[in-house]
Amino acid sequence: MDVMSAIETRRAVKRFERNLAMSETDIRTLMEYAIMSPTSFNIQNWRFVLVTDQDSKDAIRDAGWNQPQFSDCSLLIVICGDLMAHARSPERYWRNAPAAVRGRVVSAITGYYGNDAAARHDEALRSGGIAAQTIMLAARALGYDSCPMIGFDFARVAKIVGLPPDHEIVMAVAVGRGVEGPRPRPGRIPLAEAVVHNRFPGEGTGA
Amino acid sequence: MDVMSAIETRRAVKRFERNLAMSETDIRTLMEYAIMSPTSFNIQNWRFVLVTDQDSKDAIRDAGWNQPQFSDCSLLIVICGDLMAHARSPERYWRNAPAAVRGRVVSAITGYYGNDAAARHDEALRSGGIAAQTIMLAARALGYDSCPMIGFDFARVAKIVGLPPDHEIVMAVAVGRGVEGPRPRPGRIPLAEAVVHNRFPGEGTGA
Repeated sequence: MDVMSAIETRRAVKRFERNLAMSETDIRTLMEYAIMSPTSFNIQNWRFVLVTDQDSKDAIRDAGWNQPQFSDCSLLIVICGDLMAHARSPERYWRNAPAAVRGRVVSAITGYYGNDAAARHDEALRSGGIAAQTIMLAARALGYDSCPMIGFDFARVAKIVGLPPDHEIVMAVAVGRGVEGPRPRPGRIPLAEAVVHNRFPGEGTGA
Repeated sequence: MDVMSAIETRRAVKRFERNLAMSETDIRTLMEYAIMSPTSFNIQNWRFVLVTDQDSKDAIRDAGWNQPQFSDCSLLIVICGDLMAHARSPERYWRNAPAAVRGRVVSAITGYYGNDAAARHDEALRSGGIAAQTIMLAARALGYDSCPMIGFDFARVAKIVGLPPDHEIVMAVAVGRGVEGPRPRPGRIPLAEAVVHNRFPGEGTGA
């Protein structure tokens, strides 16, 4: 499937075909492409919990306002951020680079994240968001639908997936096959509202 | 270009062909696809500052550790979040939905973001990250390369683009045509480190 069609036909599916298993090959392919998503300084700070166990999916549905996507999708991916990724032997993230480059980048990584919890948190969300869209578009190419989700009790889902204390949940993506066609898009803002040329009108931040 | 090739061949380009103008048609197409990116509750909280003015690009390079991508790309997109998107007549985000659905969603939007600055901040990053990947992959389909960037002084760039006080910067994406082939990927972590099946090993958060 071409990129533009995938972007256009990716719609948040609310009803999935139950009991449709996704093959191990498709799951592996999906994740191999997911980890091609870029991260700042290549710290690869995303972690993907692949929930296929029905009891876990049901428990997450219970923690997610009873939304059927959680239990009925083929694969529920809880996208998490490892807040300490920057400190887990970061030289390996640049092992194929010349030593001088590697040294500079590792130093920059430590400088950027080492003493800044807010930077670590923001990076988890940024990386997780980027990877979520990779997953949703790659899923289209593999013949699946998806639904991005934040409507759940993050603390309860953290317990269900055994989230380590130095990780956090970014969002979830349900993957499976939709049982009904997409509804019309609910209401787009005009392109002119989303897009600004060179500078916002008005005074701006302390400008 | 097919989705999987776009994901695989999207690499962070450091050197762009200078003075390569991107056509208005390509820019418009890129942004029309960008705004098909999903957002929670369809609040469409991203704002895209399209920086093409050379003086602005040079000023951002100066605020960005002199990285040449800022000045030499064809189009520098500063991806921002509108922290008040949830309150800007949210019923229009669901105008094509039945009235009862619209009412429920608008109530949920207000409940989720109305009194929670952290939720608004996180959503800016999540939405911005998702849209960034849409842009980078759509750029590939249009024959361009890109570079995702956070290496700049966010406060200085906020002044340069006149960022309103109730917005924040998520990241930037430079778009243009690379002048050199991609280097090898610098160092992938194993798939088994990024992917967890059902539950993280170990005790987890208060489990």
